[in-house]
Amino acid sequence: MDKIEHIGIAVKDLETSNGLFKSLFGVAHYKIEEVASEGVRTSFFQSGPNKIELLEATNPDSPIAKFLEKKGEGIHHVAFAVEDLEAEMKRLEGEGFVILPGFPKKGADNKQVAFLHPKGTNGVLVELCQELQ
Amino acid sequence: MDKIEHIGIAVKDLETSNGLFKSLFGVAHYKIEEVASEGVRTSFFQSGPNKIELLEATNPDSPIAKFLEKKGEGIHHVAFAVEDLEAEMKRLEGEGFVILPGFPKKGADNKQVAFLHPKGTNGVLVELCQELQ
Repeated sequence: MDKIEHIGIAVKDLETSNGLFKSLFGVAHYKIEEVASEGVRTSFFQSGPNKIELLEATNPDSPIAKFLEKKGEGIHHVAFAVEDLEAEMKRLEGEGFVILPGFPKKGADNKQVAFLHPKGTNGVLVELCQELQ
Repeated sequence: MDKIEHIGIAVKDLETSNGLFKSLFGVAHYKIEEVASEGVRTSFFQSGPNKIELLEATNPDSPIAKFLEKKGEGIHHVAFAVEDLEAEMKRLEGEGFVILPGFPKKGADNKQVAFLHPKGTNGVLVELCQELQ
């Protein structure tokens, strides 16, 4: 596992939060992308070699809608860059970590992604992401 | 604001979590440091240009003890590297962000740090940290 590729932050309203994070970073988001399969609309900010992904739910069954309902706005996950997702998943399963069902699959920002079950990672939702060619 | 300097993760037991995150990253923590003024014992892992800080409470009044009681284990804060903490605090206050009382002060890992009030940052506890010379 390499750098923190991004942290994902659940927000209620993407436009409002885009303004807020622009004030925080002093720079606006560089793109907006909808991931229909996950029921989210996302925006991305660059912070040095890392990114911040804001996530807004697009339907009530979205994992982000459920997160907001349960915990409110805040950090939703942390994503680490990996060079070989399949190999890293195999290594982590060998260590006893559990990959969430349905992964790997294509995520936002041209990445192949998988998530680890947070019960095995001190309550932290960990994403692994490999840049697609 | 530059890179994500680190993310802080609240844990119940530092030794147990050090083992877990060693399995996750494939590399052990590189140091343990107690910050008596904050009531925390911390360990640090390197992940490319970023760090992961695990935080264990050393007394029941520690902010980490209160966080664990309220929310359980998980991501506690995200810290961004800044070159000039005083200037960045001034800029952010001008944008309407609120600095938590008692900061700036010396934090773990040879840093001068300040925290923004999470009510103004979508529920995210944001730390700013400047490397001390």
